[in-house]
Formats: sequence, structure tokens, C-alpha cells
Amino acid sequence: MDEPSPIRPTDHEARALARSLITTARFAALAVLTPGSGAPAVTRIALGLDAAGLPLTLISSLSAHTKALQASPRAGLLVGEPGPKGDPLTHPRLSLDTLAEFVDRTSPDHAALRTLWLASHPKSKLYIDFADFSFVRLRPLGAALNGGFGRAFVLAPEDLA
Amino acid sequence: MDEPSPIRPTDHEARALARSLITTARFAALAVLTPGSGAPAVTRIALGLDAAGLPLTLISSLSAHTKALQASPRAGLLVGEPGPKGDPLTHPRLSLDTLAEFVDRTSPDHAALRTLWLASHPKSKLYIDFADFSFVRLRPLGAALNGGFGRAFVLAPEDLA
Repeated sequence: MDEPSPIRPTDHEARALARSLITTARFAALAVLTPGSGAPAVTRIALGLDAAGLPLTLISSLSAHTKALQASPRAGLLVGEPGPKGDPLTHPRLSLDTLAEFVDRTSPDHAALRTLWLASHPKSKLYIDFADFSFVRLRPLGAALNGGFGRAFVLAPEDLA
Repeated sequence: MDEPSPIRPTDHEARALARSLITTARFAALAVLTPGSGAPAVTRIALGLDAAGLPLTLISSLSAHTKALQASPRAGLLVGEPGPKGDPLTHPRLSLDTLAEFVDRTSPDHAALRTLWLASHPKSKLYIDFADFSFVRLRPLGAALNGGFGRAFVLAPEDLA
């Protein structure tokens, strides 16, 4: 191909922006593979962080995305929400390639995450103890950062830590 | 499975809400399959409508999502953005299962879409005529509407027209 590469060398600023997009996200778009058809599907999930700073969500086994992750744990994640004004495509966003890891509801890990999650998502107390809800870590395998038109970076897991 | 179905019967209100989420979206999250790995990936795209009201985007062949759609046209689309306040998961959103159809840049179809797009996305005049940008229709094959906690619907293409 003769196309120029739009990817810039990863620098400190790119790493800091990516980390900031993860830590400030209250929600995210989650991409999964639909069981059976294999079609990519995208839904909204709540987002938080575990004690190590890894992306964390709380999802119900009644939802299609949970069944999809149970069948195939590779998941895309998009964070970085545009404000109400301006061109939404100039707003920085991060597309993460992740592996979903379900947390056993009877484990000490679950109990610790429950405390952390309630602090950052107090309204979840309405459903956090329902039997169909589980925490899922979304462990980054890599990411693409788009800092706005023409400002693209490819990041490794160590760039996101 | 003994789980209760969270899906409600589709009614007029659900159809109107889904249609409204599509027509008011300025941008969307797009889920595609990564060529090679097959991993689901999610990025942000600009969104508009063609003359028939079908979801339309304008994307660059330099971007990973465009290369992915060229390799595999099945695409997920998420519209319905939460405001800055309240629980983002109570905000209605629509997850569309779509088929991406690229529009030839030399066709009369492209010329007509260009006029429509510039009216709704005036800032795109900076790049709309770059040779790497193409219009892509995202033709709905079906959709899942989440109207907020416990308000889920499954919609057919005819429910979205």
C-alpha cells in the first residue's frame, strides 16, 4: 500500500491522555461477538476501576453482552465521551482491545470490588447484590488512541498502566 | 435456562424512541471485526442520515475501522448518548446490527449524500473531499433497544423505518 501511516510515535503525552480517558470514564461502549452469528455488537456498560487500576464493569447475566462474553471473552472497549458542543470527532477517545475476566461472586475479590464499586457508583446499590450481577475485569491487550483528527497512536498494555 | 426474559413486547413507544435515537445522533460507536484476529473492536464515527433515513457515516480508508468493514461488512452501531448528569445506564440507547455498504465516490449517489451531509455536518467541509473519505450506509438488520433499567426490546428493520 502507498498510503501514509497516520500513526504517531507513542510519547508521554499520549500515555497520560490514554490513562486519563480510562480513569475518568463512568461508562463505556463494549463490543462483543454475538454467539451463533459472530456479528460484532456494541452496548453501553458502566465502567470503574479495580484496586490495580484495571477497567472493571458490573453486568447482568440477563443481558446479551454478558452471555456473549461468557461464550467469547475478547472484548472491545471505547472510552472518552464528547461534550455537548463542537465536533465530536475532535474529542479524544481510546479503543481498547481487552480480555474479559469474570469474578466469582463468592470470592474475597468480589467483596473487595463491591466496596470499591459502591464508592464510585453509589446508585448501583439498587442492584449490585442481585444474583445475576457479576464484576468483570477488562484486561487490556492493547489500544488505539485517537487524540483528534490526525493524532493517532497505538499503545501496548504497559503504556496504559 | 430458568432465567426470566427481560424483553418486552415491541410497541409504538419503543419504535418511536428507537427512531428518535437514530435521527438525533451526531455520532455513534461502531463495532467491527479486526482483520486477522477477528477480535471485536469499537471506535467512534460521525453519524447522519441518507435521504431515506438510513444511518450514514463518512470514514477514511486510513482508519482501522474502514479497513475492517472492507474485509467484513457486518457492523454494530450504538446510538443514544447520556447527558453529563444522572446514572448513564438509565439513559435510553439503541444497539443496531447492520450491514455496511460503501458508496462509490464517483457515483451520483455520492454527490447527493455529500450535499445532505454538508448540511448536517458543516465542519466536515475540511476533509469531505479528501480522496480517502467515503460514505458508508449502515443498513439495519435488527436492533436491541434499552430504554433504561429493565426496559428492553428487540426490534426488526421494519420497526426502525
